[in-house]
Amino acid sequence: MLITLTTDFGSDDSYVGIMKGVIYGINPQATVVDLTHGIPPQDIVAGALTLRHSIPYFPAGTIHVAVVDPGVGTARKPILAFAGGHFFVGPDNGIFSYVLEKETDHRIFHVTAQKYFCQPISNTFHGRDVFAPVAAHLSNGLLPETFGEEIFDTVRLPPLAPTAPKPGEIKGRILHIDRFGNCVTNIDRSVLERSNEDRAKVMIKGKKIESFRESYAERFNFDIQAIYQDAKRSEAQSDRKKVVLEPRRIR
Amino acid sequence: MLITLTTDFGSDDSYVGIMKGVIYGINPQATVVDLTHGIPPQDIVAGALTLRHSIPYFPAGTIHVAVVDPGVGTARKPILAFAGGHFFVGPDNGIFSYVLEKETDHRIFHVTAQKYFCQPISNTFHGRDVFAPVAAHLSNGLLPETFGEEIFDTVRLPPLAPTAPKPGEIKGRILHIDRFGNCVTNIDRSVLERSNEDRAKVMIKGKKIESFRESYAERFNFDIQAIYQDAKRSEAQSDRKKVVLEPRRIR
Amino acid sequence: MLITLTTDFGSDDSYVGIMKGVIYGINPQATVVDLTHGIPPQDIVAGALTLRHSIPYFPAGTIHVAVVDPGVGTARKPILAFAGGHFFVGPDNGIFSYVLEKETDHRIFHVTAQKYFCQPISNTFHGRDVFAPVAAHLSNGLLPETFGEEIFDTVRLPPLAPTAPKPGEIKGRILHIDRFGNCVTNIDRSVLERSNEDRAKVMIKGKKIESFRESYAERFNFDIQAIYQDAKRSEAQSDRKKVVLEPRRIR
Repeated sequence: MLITLTTDFGSDDSYVGIMKGVIYGINPQATVVDLTHGIPPQDIVAGALTLRHSIPYFPAGTIHVAVVDPGVGTARKPILAFAGGHFFVGPDNGIFSYVLEKETDHRIFHVTAQKYFCQPISNTFHGRDVFAPVAAHLSNGLLPETFGEEIFDTVRLPPLAPTAPKPGEIKGRILHIDRFGNCVTNIDRSVLERSNEDRAKVMIKGKKIESFRESYAERFNFDIQAIYQDAKRSEAQSDRKKVVLEPRRIR
Repeated sequence: MLITLTTDFGSDDSYVGIMKGVIYGINPQATVVDLTHGIPPQDIVAGALTLRHSIPYFPAGTIHVAVVDPGVGTARKPILAFAGGHFFVGPDNGIFSYVLEKETDHRIFHVTAQKYFCQPISNTFHGRDVFAPVAAHLSNGLLPETFGEEIFDTVRLPPLAPTAPKPGEIKGRILHIDRFGNCVTNIDRSVLERSNEDRAKVMIKGKKIESFRESYAERFNFDIQAIYQDAKRSEAQSDRKKVVLEPRRIR
Repeated sequence: MLITLTTDFGSDDSYVGIMKGVIYGINPQATVVDLTHGIPPQDIVAGALTLRHSIPYFPAGTIHVAVVDPGVGTARKPILAFAGGHFFVGPDNGIFSYVLEKETDHRIFHVTAQKYFCQPISNTFHGRDVFAPVAAHLSNGLLPETFGEEIFDTVRLPPLAPTAPKPGEIKGRILHIDRFGNCVTNIDRSVLERSNEDRAKVMIKGKKIESFRESYAERFNFDIQAIYQDAKRSEAQSDRKKVVLEPRRIR
């Protein structure tokens, strides 16, 4: 059974490793996958977006544990959700909002069955004490209702969709900028009417984006072709245009 | 069989991946877990603390490989320890000190059986050439004594316990500061007498800590409540208090 | 079946996790190992070197997926190679050059069988849509020729070997500097004639390297010995030379 982990723990501490120890102790047959531990600390929205974008690529029945949890140790509920054929375990703070917004036919349970927790339960690390063990027991075949009562009122983030302040204008947000500089927005291609797409203007902070490309290389086509041609020539003439192929350390 | 890896290798190089290649080549059924590879380079104390705090969350029989090894290539011994139901494989430089200090009923072996190593043995990467293959063979069911003679004199770090320079005064250290700013000290809650706890003063570098909290949110309770209430209201009124819920990139 | 992943995706995004979701969806029995995701963005040479150095430590039959892919979305071919008993899946941009240069008895296939891809195929993430699913289907036992025609003309980087501009002079490059400051060069020990090794001068950017060491500690032998002796003494006299054993945070 596949279990994914999404946290804001980073990779310098052993918190993630400890959660895996708890999981494998309860279900040695589990397969645990790190979705990412690079969510900015306590950034629930970033966690919610990551889950929304990533879940479609996992097989049905996968259990997704998410721990971005500024409210740990307070009365905020631990929850278990079943949506779109996947299971979700984490705090009731909105982190599953964008998945639940898409998969409207879902069920949510308030996790209260303490016998499945690691005792004693800390006030600072429910990833280890609550969410990891519940996910592991779930992966052993327990039913969601085993862990607590079904509930119908959970914390939600504001909807993801862009707004349309005026006719012909769509106002969205940049949701995430990745290490390559890609900006992911909340404006889906389907939002733009097909017939108007060619004439759309894109403004970011007042700056107009002049042109559209379908791939990274389309913008830099000449350079990429040069690299390839150069590389092909290089076995015969390895001294030419060395610069391009020297190892670069950009960090 | 579960094998954990704790190193100072970071995640930018392929050193950790190579160790896993060696392990899976010897035992394809192993489950390998990264405890952390973010130990500061050559910081044996940080590695020893990480192991001490993390081991209790792994199931009995787990094999823990630790490679923080400034003495690699010298006469420092490779060792294999059995303590508290767990196995430990790594250099004899003190990295298992805090585990062995707690689990006093332990056995330690000097790993000398070169036929279980990867040949040729380098002077710079015993994680790959010695510790990974020994752990993998151990996970295949070999007994600890197969790898070398039992020894009784190993390198130890200074004890972890705080000192008591004067009656009523306890002097400890901050052992680790994590990415959330949590300071882990060597002063356990049990060290403070229950009856005096309320009156204890905490000084850090001459600065007095004024108050105690049980959870992150207790300190910032007002803000956290506001986030939750705002999130709950947000489905109806998604324009209010947007700032709190905008994606933040703090790195 | 073992599948390794080598990318320039870093660890802050969920791209790597998504590739694993695709793989486990197709072959739940796969074992996926991260070789590294710390290749500098779009640095094909660094990826090629990492594969060359790391592959020998993996068992025969391992499938290595490499995604450093500035040409994604262009006409550059997806390829599958079989070399030295290992399989390789990735873009035809030279990333397998140094493996293929060493394993001259290899076969290479142009991956064109779209029924094994994830649909729809994006222009920006063939790691997810092409390379991960092809590797997963391959790990399920499909033959390489299932995925496309054999080809004989692939992109290659300049050869790795150093040059000899004058008799008695060898000109090489530093290929990689790791987190410990180790510089890996393209000058193999075997390149230096045994009889002349003692008299060789090493120049880096005009600076002469004065002496050679076999291990890290050989250079700092006195210090390392002091640490060990101090640690041994420390149980009895834990107040002495504390500085050496205090936790250090160097980042």
